[in-house]
Amino acid sequence: MTDDRRLLRVALEQARAGLAEGGIPIGAALFGPGGELLGAGRNRRVQDDDPATHAETAAFRAAGRRPGGYADTTMVTTLSPCWYCAGLIRQFRIGRVVVGEAATFPGAHRWLSDAGVTVTLLDDGECAALMRRFVREQPDLWNEDIGA
Amino acid sequence: MTDDRRLLRVALEQARAGLAEGGIPIGAALFGPGGELLGAGRNRRVQDDDPATHAETAAFRAAGRRPGGYADTTMVTTLSPCWYCAGLIRQFRIGRVVVGEAATFPGAHRWLSDAGVTVTLLDDGECAALMRRFVREQPDLWNEDIGA
Repeated sequence: MTDDRRLLRVALEQARAGLAEGGIPIGAALFGPGGELLGAGRNRRVQDDDPATHAETAAFRAAGRRPGGYADTTMVTTLSPCWYCAGLIRQFRIGRVVVGEAATFPGAHRWLSDAGVTVTLLDDGECAALMRRFVREQPDLWNEDIGA
Repeated sequence: MTDDRRLLRVALEQARAGLAEGGIPIGAALFGPGGELLGAGRNRRVQDDDPATHAETAAFRAAGRRPGGYADTTMVTTLSPCWYCAGLIRQFRIGRVVVGEAATFPGAHRWLSDAGVTVTLLDDGECAALMRRFVREQPDLWNEDIGA
């Protein structure tokens, strides 16, 4: 297993925990330069009735303040980041993003890479299967979460 | 006073409350189509040690879930939205943004208007004075908040 796949497992574990709670199965984790976990989290729309906490937001919050910046950090997310999460990554200059899959939702990869963020797409089958099933079973909830 | 200036006062009140708490003086409020307040909030970096809650995020969270969408809502913020907050506005298709000032931080107005968001800049002296003083007195905290 590559190192990125190992990091993805942490985010995927969050996504599965979210699904088990009746939530939207998207997870994320922020890692430091040595691959150490800084924070992990999952979408909280259903669990906390909170529309403002996507998986990336939750992981970023869990990591806490980092006055030195985020250039040396990697955000790993099971699903391609929406504009809100891409904006977070760009504004805080997170150096790298590892995306589980972009088949069920095509995020702003090009916009991020144009801004200097390294984007790695893993095209992971488990991430995609999880989302595909969720979107099929709860389309209204999914549309609510992406403002569609 | 125009109606937009009246809405701005709600956001400005949040910014002032943030400053009084020792926080970053940026406030925001989300309003419904009839001008009714849906939610208001302020930057929480210092107060909650939370880097993920900017003023717009706080207002959006306070408004709660809105399954019907946000096309008919107006986000009012004392300061021009950074990429993170502009991403929130764009992803959730908030119809209009009223910006107190963009002199101390030039946000993504053009990017938002190109995406169909109506952006109104009020160029408010009080909002600008509040931020100018804060940036002068606490430059490190300010840079931390914008990932600079």
